[in-house]
Amino acid sequence: MSQRKIRLGAFIPGAGHHVAAWRHPEAQADGGINLAHYVRLAQTAERGLFDTLFLADGLAAGQGNVSAAAEGKQAWGGSFEPVTLFSALSVVTAHIGFVATASTTYEDPFILARKFASLDHLSAGRAGWNVVTTGSSAAAGNFGLEKHPAHADRYDRAREFVDVVKGLWDSWEDDAFVRDKASGQFYAPHKRHELNHAGRHFAVRGPLNVPRPPQGHPVVVQAGSSEAGKEFAAETAEVIFTAQQTLEEARAFYADVKGRLARHGRTPDQLLIMPGVFAVVGRTEEEAQRKYEALQALILPEVGLALLSGLSGGVDLSGYDLDGPVPELPETENMKSRQALMLDIARKHDFTIRQLYLWVAGARGHWTIVGTVEQIADQLQAWFEQGAADGFNVMPPWLPGGLDDFVDLVVPELQRRGLFRTRYDGHTLRDNLGLARPGNRFVTATAPREPALATI
Amino acid sequence: MSQRKIRLGAFIPGAGHHVAAWRHPEAQADGGINLAHYVRLAQTAERGLFDTLFLADGLAAGQGNVSAAAEGKQAWGGSFEPVTLFSALSVVTAHIGFVATASTTYEDPFILARKFASLDHLSAGRAGWNVVTTGSSAAAGNFGLEKHPAHADRYDRAREFVDVVKGLWDSWEDDAFVRDKASGQFYAPHKRHELNHAGRHFAVRGPLNVPRPPQGHPVVVQAGSSEAGKEFAAETAEVIFTAQQTLEEARAFYADVKGRLARHGRTPDQLLIMPGVFAVVGRTEEEAQRKYEALQALILPEVGLALLSGLSGGVDLSGYDLDGPVPELPETENMKSRQALMLDIARKHDFTIRQLYLWVAGARGHWTIVGTVEQIADQLQAWFEQGAADGFNVMPPWLPGGLDDFVDLVVPELQRRGLFRTRYDGHTLRDNLGLARPGNRFVTATAPREPALATI
Repeated sequence: MSQRKIRLGAFIPGAGHHVAAWRHPEAQADGGINLAHYVRLAQTAERGLFDTLFLADGLAAGQGNVSAAAEGKQAWGGSFEPVTLFSALSVVTAHIGFVATASTTYEDPFILARKFASLDHLSAGRAGWNVVTTGSSAAAGNFGLEKHPAHADRYDRAREFVDVVKGLWDSWEDDAFVRDKASGQFYAPHKRHELNHAGRHFAVRGPLNVPRPPQGHPVVVQAGSSEAGKEFAAETAEVIFTAQQTLEEARAFYADVKGRLARHGRTPDQLLIMPGVFAVVGRTEEEAQRKYEALQALILPEVGLALLSGLSGGVDLSGYDLDGPVPELPETENMKSRQALMLDIARKHDFTIRQLYLWVAGARGHWTIVGTVEQIADQLQAWFEQGAADGFNVMPPWLPGGLDDFVDLVVPELQRRGLFRTRYDGHTLRDNLGLARPGNRFVTATAPREPALATI
Repeated sequence: MSQRKIRLGAFIPGAGHHVAAWRHPEAQADGGINLAHYVRLAQTAERGLFDTLFLADGLAAGQGNVSAAAEGKQAWGGSFEPVTLFSALSVVTAHIGFVATASTTYEDPFILARKFASLDHLSAGRAGWNVVTTGSSAAAGNFGLEKHPAHADRYDRAREFVDVVKGLWDSWEDDAFVRDKASGQFYAPHKRHELNHAGRHFAVRGPLNVPRPPQGHPVVVQAGSSEAGKEFAAETAEVIFTAQQTLEEARAFYADVKGRLARHGRTPDQLLIMPGVFAVVGRTEEEAQRKYEALQALILPEVGLALLSGLSGGVDLSGYDLDGPVPELPETENMKSRQALMLDIARKHDFTIRQLYLWVAGARGHWTIVGTVEQIADQLQAWFEQGAADGFNVMPPWLPGGLDDFVDLVVPELQRRGLFRTRYDGHTLRDNLGLARPGNRFVTATAPREPALATI
């Protein structure tokens, strides 16, 4: 029985991951904006001893450039904002972590640092921030920009943004708030720190108006897999969520990213790699296949094409023959790594446009397994034990049923194999993930201490 | 028995309103960042059938310019961000509304519209936004500004900001999301609206990526009482929270603001006026006075002075004799109406600096009543019936005890007099406040309708 355990995230968009999930007879079609649905999902995932709930996020309703035929046929425009939703869910759960996506391109570092610090306090140390630079250009128009900033500029800003946010989280030392009723000292002034950041993108004085989060810093997650994305993750992230198709590719990615850590003075255990997995679970192979085909049959062609355009960097594919080959695509400034993945899959399988959109309709380029409990557990075990993954971000095909299947069928099998926890050990998300609590940048262990509070 | 009922808000900063509240033996000193404390307050206020919980907000830890002696002695720097806190509290309550303060000077309209829409959905229609332009200049440094924008500029931006936010809330018609599993139509395209705002301060395309809030728009609250503040409220607010000292002043304010509404095509019932009231409740006058004096005795002189500086527009008063007269103050660009109020009080009562800070230490310029249940009910009734108030924002001296006192002692007396509800009648905050649900700016009753969805 291995000591090292698989980490599990539950990635829970409203009605599920499959592009036609909301049409599934048992799916919660309004799941994105239904609190009771999310309470149920959170409690199911916690029953399954998952480490985190994970939510993606965009700052536009849809991705723009949708053909007239596909208009109104994709399940978007109607979801909760992730941090407010997770704040609500923190009250009805006790162990599971909350990884909310938020953009360094369009949000403000003081406001963002504060809302994640607040979520970490509300949840007693269960917050995580999935740092994105926003892949879709549709957001720009909602923030007064003519044009979505270029990929390299977004990552430059992201690097500074994350540094500012971490600095703001350190504004107050852990024991700064003494609240001594007798003396009238509410906090120790020498444990309050101004950041005084002045950089290329931001000037932020601080301190933050929230005490240091219970975890020190909420867990920093990153999800881009481009060259810039990998380097950024190696520098700053603690969990990386990635789309990998095969064991070989995933092992190469794993070795690549882990290999970058030393250059940043970090050790391999400081960054967990969690590929997404879109698993369709059956009691038999036939049942799993039937479940998958039932979802595939619900895809309208115009929706499949629109999905593919979005994943290909916003390129309009509606002028091409659905049953012809996938054309060369112009270079994109949007989701670089995802576009490359689409082309790679098309070439490898010699797919037509229709075959490609059917292929990505479930997991949008993430790893797809359609099989029995044992087959799925075998594959997860192989990736976990052969240097491809520290855990997985589970992407249920439809919700709530797809998460129920994973929790009720796959989790017990992973536990039986000694690969997954049988109870929560820690109190915070960091504890459960096995990530160390970061020190405060304003405190050095060897520096002479200011006078103790008693002498003030 | 009157048909018209008093509206009540519970304004609940961490340990209470009095500047020394956190030192009170029964106060929750860490209340600002203690979820269990806030759950208790929310449930107490709901037991008392309050319309709303209310939270102020600032975007800096403290107000700057604090004397060395006062450093660390004010209860700030350590609170939840209001919208995340209210999202959590929405799950443990069923009726009470949530009015969160947020700044038009430092926040972004798309992000802000989205988080309040999300809170309104999470709470099934119980969100309100207290619009502020941020009175304290300390925020500027946290957002890359050299200088806090001038009062007039802040209000100019605020007017455009609120218009953009309301427009974004209208992005989707109420019945836009049809989620028809059979046809594959998720939303009706002609019920999705781009705002395409291009103004002096903002360019925002829309639509918002959240369905129209259950209330149409979260309730818009305003709290500035300067000339610009009153005009802004008359134009756009549905509730105004104000600091008034006497029945005469409150009546004049009430008539002034209500008198401005017609000019904006609005009727007096579309804007509720709710002065703050800092009530110290006793079973006898002596008990009330004893409670008040016990709090006053906890004020450290340096803290009183720092409080007064903050309320006087950030003017440093530490060079003056505490027992001498209040000096003339230079004109401020910060909280104009509050500075004028401070000077007015000082002149009227011929207060020294010490007397003035002791006087404002409880309610920071809001109406203070120290008395028996009957005395407090008499005064509230007088203001309510004599054209000075539609309700009150109750400011408990310390928490949780001060709210318990009001709910257990004053509320039953108001009910006995027929002045206050004995159960919640409505489902949303608007219902309870008696405010109409706003129409959607993109829908005109008489316009020819687009083809019904069935024909799509």
